[in-house]
Amino acid sequence: MNIRSNPDTTRPAVTTGLLPSSRKIFSTPDAAPDLRVPLREIILSEAAGEPNLPVYDTSGPYTDPSVTIDVNAGLSRNRLAWVKERGGVEEYAGREIKPEDNGNVGASHAAKAFTAHHKPIRGLDGHKITQLEFARAGIITKEMIYVAERENLGRKKQLERAEAALADGESFGAEVPAFITPEFVRSEIARGRAIIPSNINHAELEPMIIGRNFLTKINANIGNSAVTSSVEEEVDKMVWAIRWGADTVMDLSTGRNIHTTREWILRNSPVPIGTVPIYQALEKCEGDPVKLTWELYKDTLIEQCEQGVDYFTIHAGVRLPYIHLTANRVTGIVSRGGSIMAKWCLAHHKESFLYTHFDEICDLMRKYDVSFSLGDGLRPGSIADANDRAQFAELETLGELTKIAWDKGCQVMIEGPGHVPMHKIKINMDKQLKECGEAPFYTLGPLTTDIAPGYDHITSGIGAAMIGWFGCAMLCYVTPKEHLGLPDRNDVKTGVITYKIAAHASDLAKGHPAAQLRDDALSRARFDFRWTDQFNLGLDPDTAKSFHDETLPKEAHKVAHFCSMCGPKFCSMKITQDVRDYAATLNDPASVGMSVSGTIEDGMKQMSEKFKEMGSSVYLDAEKVKESNRVL
Amino acid sequence: MNIRSNPDTTRPAVTTGLLPSSRKIFSTPDAAPDLRVPLREIILSEAAGEPNLPVYDTSGPYTDPSVTIDVNAGLSRNRLAWVKERGGVEEYAGREIKPEDNGNVGASHAAKAFTAHHKPIRGLDGHKITQLEFARAGIITKEMIYVAERENLGRKKQLERAEAALADGESFGAEVPAFITPEFVRSEIARGRAIIPSNINHAELEPMIIGRNFLTKINANIGNSAVTSSVEEEVDKMVWAIRWGADTVMDLSTGRNIHTTREWILRNSPVPIGTVPIYQALEKCEGDPVKLTWELYKDTLIEQCEQGVDYFTIHAGVRLPYIHLTANRVTGIVSRGGSIMAKWCLAHHKESFLYTHFDEICDLMRKYDVSFSLGDGLRPGSIADANDRAQFAELETLGELTKIAWDKGCQVMIEGPGHVPMHKIKINMDKQLKECGEAPFYTLGPLTTDIAPGYDHITSGIGAAMIGWFGCAMLCYVTPKEHLGLPDRNDVKTGVITYKIAAHASDLAKGHPAAQLRDDALSRARFDFRWTDQFNLGLDPDTAKSFHDETLPKEAHKVAHFCSMCGPKFCSMKITQDVRDYAATLNDPASVGMSVSGTIEDGMKQMSEKFKEMGSSVYLDAEKVKESNRVL
Repeated sequence: MNIRSNPDTTRPAVTTGLLPSSRKIFSTPDAAPDLRVPLREIILSEAAGEPNLPVYDTSGPYTDPSVTIDVNAGLSRNRLAWVKERGGVEEYAGREIKPEDNGNVGASHAAKAFTAHHKPIRGLDGHKITQLEFARAGIITKEMIYVAERENLGRKKQLERAEAALADGESFGAEVPAFITPEFVRSEIARGRAIIPSNINHAELEPMIIGRNFLTKINANIGNSAVTSSVEEEVDKMVWAIRWGADTVMDLSTGRNIHTTREWILRNSPVPIGTVPIYQALEKCEGDPVKLTWELYKDTLIEQCEQGVDYFTIHAGVRLPYIHLTANRVTGIVSRGGSIMAKWCLAHHKESFLYTHFDEICDLMRKYDVSFSLGDGLRPGSIADANDRAQFAELETLGELTKIAWDKGCQVMIEGPGHVPMHKIKINMDKQLKECGEAPFYTLGPLTTDIAPGYDHITSGIGAAMIGWFGCAMLCYVTPKEHLGLPDRNDVKTGVITYKIAAHASDLAKGHPAAQLRDDALSRARFDFRWTDQFNLGLDPDTAKSFHDETLPKEAHKVAHFCSMCGPKFCSMKITQDVRDYAATLNDPASVGMSVSGTIEDGMKQMSEKFKEMGSSVYLDAEKVKESNRVL
Repeated sequence: MNIRSNPDTTRPAVTTGLLPSSRKIFSTPDAAPDLRVPLREIILSEAAGEPNLPVYDTSGPYTDPSVTIDVNAGLSRNRLAWVKERGGVEEYAGREIKPEDNGNVGASHAAKAFTAHHKPIRGLDGHKITQLEFARAGIITKEMIYVAERENLGRKKQLERAEAALADGESFGAEVPAFITPEFVRSEIARGRAIIPSNINHAELEPMIIGRNFLTKINANIGNSAVTSSVEEEVDKMVWAIRWGADTVMDLSTGRNIHTTREWILRNSPVPIGTVPIYQALEKCEGDPVKLTWELYKDTLIEQCEQGVDYFTIHAGVRLPYIHLTANRVTGIVSRGGSIMAKWCLAHHKESFLYTHFDEICDLMRKYDVSFSLGDGLRPGSIADANDRAQFAELETLGELTKIAWDKGCQVMIEGPGHVPMHKIKINMDKQLKECGEAPFYTLGPLTTDIAPGYDHITSGIGAAMIGWFGCAMLCYVTPKEHLGLPDRNDVKTGVITYKIAAHASDLAKGHPAAQLRDDALSRARFDFRWTDQFNLGLDPDTAKSFHDETLPKEAHKVAHFCSMCGPKFCSMKITQDVRDYAATLNDPASVGMSVSGTIEDGMKQMSEKFKEMGSSVYLDAEKVKESNRVL
């Protein structure tokens, strides 16, 4: 089941259908029986003799066979009721869409507008709106209950599976509990250590949480540029990214049709959508940073708040006094948002309007519960520039801004680098925790070397796994195309899978109590030669199966007790049963059918005879298999 | 220039020709002017305004335009003279090739024998033969001079480039000097901290060194199995692996034609070749481990010593008393060599003949200077089994065997795991250094999670980079096909590039004094929009260029000051020149043509006006570029 639905050119085709041998299941939290929290259950073969494995599921209704997907209509807006029932919000007409919202695109280049229109809602003065405000007031929202259930991966109560108790790890101060409760979620949000990015206008959202005491998350960047791509491709990429495990998606579109592209993405996205509003603001003043104004930027924020963007990257830490600190860098300022603001500051010789208007930005974002992702506009763009004064000066300012945003009731996470050699990664994490009061860290990679363009998913996957272990809450993926071009569909998948690996390796090393369940299930399948279970338990069953089938394509080989590495004649895995029998003789000779009157020494001698009898007859003949493959 | 020569089916076709914009150069050591140490010089564009960059070159004569490659004849055997001129060796008839050496293959399946035959040489009693013996005697061999020159990457004397002094890092006790001298090489070998795997019969060898105070090395595994592949493919894979940077190659062939395959590989390999002799010994007794004998194994060692294998994996640490320690593992014994020996020990209820005959093995290997790679037959095969008692009991025995081999005059390195979560990696490195007296460590990955079959180059690349940083001297690659099938040509390349990334990231983090030169050169090229230089400085210029060209294929775009990510309208890199001008005003208003009588404040205001004038006119128009691409 891997269907790209609707080959109708007027609307995006997206991939639907379950992953191989999977079932969409829903878990019902005790605290809110009306909620249905999605999980994917990986169905194991009967031979496994163990329960199916539930795993975290970011893919939304696209993998739910009971849902008919209509990209033109968008996903159902279930969350609107949750927001309305707690009150304190009003529906209103909303801002008119203006020609500049789509870069004054002419009719010939204009993308088709999204069909449905939903009136925006906003918070009323004097009412609690954000998850942070509710959390501080001791109120557990449905979003909190939802994410608590989701984080437990189908485990219904503390330590239901004995394995969970076995997880060890070095957490570097993170405190992941054995079982996540709604109250734990509330307390972490109240402390600012976690966020649920959830604009009240993003009613299609399946809430998720970002914080170092939860599962490590990953983000996938998509978005068209002035040079390539279309609305259809971007919606497809979003659906494709979440199919493989993206927890959030950032729409980094530039050029024309920005508003329309974002509307299509939001109305069809079950995951939080992040943006960098300055990109759109820049398009509204012909790409000239010098012409940017606070009013134009503010208007863009309102536009995006009303659409339902869940978090904004805001480069308010790029301050005038820091800009000269980048002058001697090898790669200067590489953040697009950072350089836009640097240019503005220099041209006007003024402090950044994002910094001087930060209070107003907070007030606006609070009304919609848009989370801050405080941007690292001065992040290093090369190994040479890592951890320099410009980078850390900005980080200190981000710490100052975090406290202001918290005081205003806003949820906050902090963006981090970038390009950092391995020995300089931990200081980034430690300094971020210290400066920013443990607000969640969200890093791009980091890339651990600059010498492999075309493979930067790997150079950065190394750094991402490490910083995730050290405490980074969300890892922004880097695709193989980084530095070379915009990612296509294949690149998106490669980037997502690479970052799922990094995030999971982090969870294992931190000692997340449920992380190793999947590793162990897969290892058991591998050891038992349950090939199909092994494929299905992996992050990418399709690729695993196709690699295996290149040399052993027959169905019969899916249960064969050998593989193409050693061939059928000898297999190391087979030895282990012998070892187990042997170990049993050391403990209890009777258990392997030997005379209890004999000594252990006798028992071992008998085993020795038995092994000799077995000889190589238990193995198939190599040439036969080779020939049978040739016939295909 | 990417030519697969000789499409003649009777002999292997291999890839020859230089990498893009490269030149094969040779460096002449002061201490031995007759030696020609190969380097690849990456030729930069004139616009770079900086010298070409010499890089380490593993590719051998295959990338030397002045050499005519004839795979039937093999490479020239220059090193034979070095060995003979220091004396103490004799040429002799050598062992006859027997039918069982090729698994009693019938005429219809037999691979074509290698044409030339070279009489083997061996050391004479009472003479120094191994690099360790020479080093201890204070004698610097040509091999030592050669590798010293090679490790300096074209730098002719200490700190010739100022950048080298800037390298920082956390070395965890490694002591990489600013410049490698032949005497330093000698002293490291004498201490057992480094090895030069260099069988005196591998006369085609371009020597290299493995030790934690040198560049981190990588190994690529090739080899046919009973189920797949042929001699031709394996020779091609070897040449392909070294083209992309493999420092050594292990031939792990099983099934038939083992002797012949190895002969073709050795005679055509400029890098050290490693094997696991027990694999061939097993084929000589119909794949039944129970029938293995010391005599049969010894005969196999002699066969391979005479052929010129540079290092042997010997699983002498799999002792009878340790085997039951694996009984409760999730994945038992996964090392093929380890499980062969475990089966033998159990069947005979005897201590391993590799352990009981270890002295004799040393005496034999010393005569040819074959290095030990003491195998980790009890390495973990899953996250669940990492760092268990079985694994560490074996490691302690490997420490004991290291001292015996050293006493016998043999060079030694130690193999390590395998599957290890991030938080358990460092203890592996620390324990290995302690137990094995700082003998070089050589690990497979380790894989940091088991949930991504099809992507194990990445799960393991993470662990490899980390253990390389901690002090591992050589990283054995893992390809995307690991656990699923034997690697093909593409997998070999992906594995090698991934591991070059890991090794280089390690060198950067350790503070290798020359490692960052390449990162910085590439970062400067990136910042200057020298696209072609950026591709060519990378590990895989072909892939980088093809990724870039997917969106911006025109030659004109190779010098364009923009890329497909932001498009031509706005580019963050462009801002930096503005920043530099601005910083100059802070220091010296006169330098940017402003009145020296004015204050700094005045200077900045003038700059401000200048920026406004520039406006967006310096940028090209996005739509024009987009249209021009469509025309193609």
